Amino acid sequence: MDSRRAESFSDGVFAVAITVLVFNLLAISPPDGFGKLTAHWPEYAAYVVSFLTIGIMWLNHHTMLSHASKINRTALVLNIFLLMGVVAVPFPTGLVAGGLAAGAPAGATKVAAVAYGLVMTGTSVAFSALWLYLSSHGDPSLAARPRQQSRQASLRFGAGLLGYIAATVIAALGAPKVALGIYGLLAVYYLFEHLPGPAARDAGAGGQNDQPAGHPAAR
Amino acid sequence: MDSRRAESFSDGVFAVAITVLVFNLLAISPPDGFGKLTAHWPEYAAYVVSFLTIGIMWLNHHTMLSHASKINRTALVLNIFLLMGVVAVPFPTGLVAGGLAAGAPAGATKVAAVAYGLVMTGTSVAFSALWLYLSSHGDPSLAARPRQQSRQASLRFGAGLLGYIAATVIAALGAPKVALGIYGLLAVYYLFEHLPGPAARDAGAGGQNDQPAGHPAAR
Amino acid sequence: MDSRRAESFSDGVFAVAITVLVFNLLAISPPDGFGKLTAHWPEYAAYVVSFLTIGIMWLNHHTMLSHASKINRTALVLNIFLLMGVVAVPFPTGLVAGGLAAGAPAGATKVAAVAYGLVMTGTSVAFSALWLYLSSHGDPSLAARPRQQSRQASLRFGAGLLGYIAATVIAALGAPKVALGIYGLLAVYYLFEHLPGPAARDAGAGGQNDQPAGHPAAR
Amino acid sequence: MDSRRAESFSDGVFAVAITVLVFNLLAISPPDGFGKLTAHWPEYAAYVVSFLTIGIMWLNHHTMLSHASKINRTALVLNIFLLMGVVAVPFPTGLVAGGLAAGAPAGATKVAAVAYGLVMTGTSVAFSALWLYLSSHGDPSLAARPRQQSRQASLRFGAGLLGYIAATVIAALGAPKVALGIYGLLAVYYLFEHLPGPAARDAGAGGQNDQPAGHPAAR
Repeated sequence: MDSRRAESFSDGVFAVAITVLVFNLLAISPPDGFGKLTAHWPEYAAYVVSFLTIGIMWLNHHTMLSHASKINRTALVLNIFLLMGVVAVPFPTGLVAGGLAAGAPAGATKVAAVAYGLVMTGTSVAFSALWLYLSSHGDPSLAARPRQQSRQASLRFGAGLLGYIAATVIAALGAPKVALGIYGLLAVYYLFEHLPGPAARDAGAGGQNDQPAGHPAAR
Repeated sequence: MDSRRAESFSDGVFAVAITVLVFNLLAISPPDGFGKLTAHWPEYAAYVVSFLTIGIMWLNHHTMLSHASKINRTALVLNIFLLMGVVAVPFPTGLVAGGLAAGAPAGATKVAAVAYGLVMTGTSVAFSALWLYLSSHGDPSLAARPRQQSRQASLRFGAGLLGYIAATVIAALGAPKVALGIYGLLAVYYLFEHLPGPAARDAGAGGQNDQPAGHPAAR
Repeated sequence: MDSRRAESFSDGVFAVAITVLVFNLLAISPPDGFGKLTAHWPEYAAYVVSFLTIGIMWLNHHTMLSHASKINRTALVLNIFLLMGVVAVPFPTGLVAGGLAAGAPAGATKVAAVAYGLVMTGTSVAFSALWLYLSSHGDPSLAARPRQQSRQASLRFGAGLLGYIAATVIAALGAPKVALGIYGLLAVYYLFEHLPGPAARDAGAGGQNDQPAGHPAAR
Repeated sequence: MDSRRAESFSDGVFAVAITVLVFNLLAISPPDGFGKLTAHWPEYAAYVVSFLTIGIMWLNHHTMLSHASKINRTALVLNIFLLMGVVAVPFPTGLVAGGLAAGAPAGATKVAAVAYGLVMTGTSVAFSALWLYLSSHGDPSLAARPRQQSRQASLRFGAGLLGYIAATVIAALGAPKVALGIYGLLAVYYLFEHLPGPAARDAGAGGQNDQPAGHPAAR
């Protein structure tokens, strides 16, 4: 199957999933004072972190599929599992916002932080599985890429996965707010960390960059 | 009409319908303990089964339309009926989750399992109707395909349709949990069963595969 | 602006709007008997009629834009007004379902039928305005089409518009159920009536049909 | 990265965000009289203004990205922040509708108008940041455009930004209804004001317009 069709469907799912996050805000009843508006900061923070997280997952998903011109049914099924995780993100996002709210029942923050971590871990596993599968079966151009770069990319994906596992364990052990901080840091980390990655990758894979790899517009 | 436009619209509808499934999860109020989180297993199971089901329907829909380069208005109208079924899936999914919940009213599981079966049966009928129409009117390349392959594909679609009808009857006769198990098995069956299909189909139809038909990346 | 981009955005809006219709079904609480399930027939009927209506509007919208290769800002603004009507359709659809429900307050059916008619009338006006604008400014190929065909198309759009206006007035005069019947008939009418239209249109406009105009697969 | 992919994802997000606005209407319970239907005018007015606002933001976003054939990761991250603002728009839209409703708590209008202004200001800042970044790094064709036109475009974006900041301050100082009027005027202003802009811009940038710049169909 032409990978463009899979990308188009995935883009649609990412676009809807990222927009569903606003429903956690729509549930806020009209406040009659600025204090009541700002009291909903957990909703806003959860919205921003999950929006960045899904947005970056889209970026990486897109980079990943852009290397494969054809995609077979196994990869498509792995992709469906990945999307299953992405679409679920608004659920633990709402739990986290609810768990941080003033007057939330004791233990709600912990449950929410663990649920968030489990969904993110599952999504990261699906991401890594799709990446490993595409690297080994997907496309000749992927296979032709220098080994070191593939290893770097795998390491980076692995680092995120380990981060989510660690934060989930930390939340389960009784420090959910530390875990939530790690989720936020992971979003910011991916925002900046990947910046030079794709440029170097393309330079190695295509060899036809029309711009020097160090140029800010390269990719 | 160029079939790409119909695919693009259908992709959008599939993408939104599959994402709407998360709203059954968003209705879960923040739990204050892991017991209360895991007590919602019916919602999670229903989410996974319906997500896989819609995802696989998208795969098959895409495979089906990829064989037709042009699509006429009759096929488009059949496609709208198919999409009407796909979009409705989150409704019986929520009923099933509600019917399996602890404390659900007696009879709710049965009603939910029948409703799920009716929607899936209707969607399968629309799927088969579109497939039969496209096979006989849609495209010369479809008509040129070896008869045996067309028959195999029709058999496979028919098997799914019969499965849904049988499960619906079983649910109505008083064994809704057996029916729910069949729905889950049908999702898994389609996940694996179709794997070799499209590769063989393409090999016969196009004759221009750039990879041997047995290769894992062939389609 | 290339009209393909406007089509792509419009397709997305149509796809989401048509899927939003399922939220009127998601609001149904899990029933514990088949009687309670079937008692919600107004929701199902409203879902089917509005789904077909939006689906057919998508078909016609697509046919309309496919004749224009370029689209200017005035047409884009008219298109936004058209989409504003399409997106609003789930609102009166829910009102109609609520107004037909057993135990609905007296007068609710009438209000709902009028609201539905107003939204459909507004959408039809925007549709006709965009059609008239594109016919006169949009594209040389549109202007080159035989006058008679343009007139036929305008007549057909006009007939739908008049039907919605008439039904709205009938609802306001106290026969809302007659009006609802007319809305359903208009959806079915458009389903079949337009069938030969585009084929003949293309034959006149393009002159390069690769299939005889009478063939079922022509467009 | 090919900018078309970023446009496609952004289009999806815009399409879903603009459709989410209807959920503020879906929350209206079936009214039993025309008085009760028209009493919800704040919801309808808020729907129209926000629909036009998001629709026009889509238009400008599309015009902006259509000038860049390649887009780098920094621009993509800026784009995610822009989309974060667009997706949030239905939230303050609902607050404004709630704040204007009969029987709304004192102070709700003020809070809502400020919240609306803050979201629109943030979105405008992200818009301007992306525009400035693309102008200076994005694409040679953008850089080659006459300076005066770039300055005009920047001025126009800046005027909208200043308008939103001013209205937010006015709302915070105690005149929220004046602020809401300004939001509506800004939507209408952009509807008409930009009309000649892109045509002139293209004429300068591309030099290959197949229609005179003054012609209504130019772009």
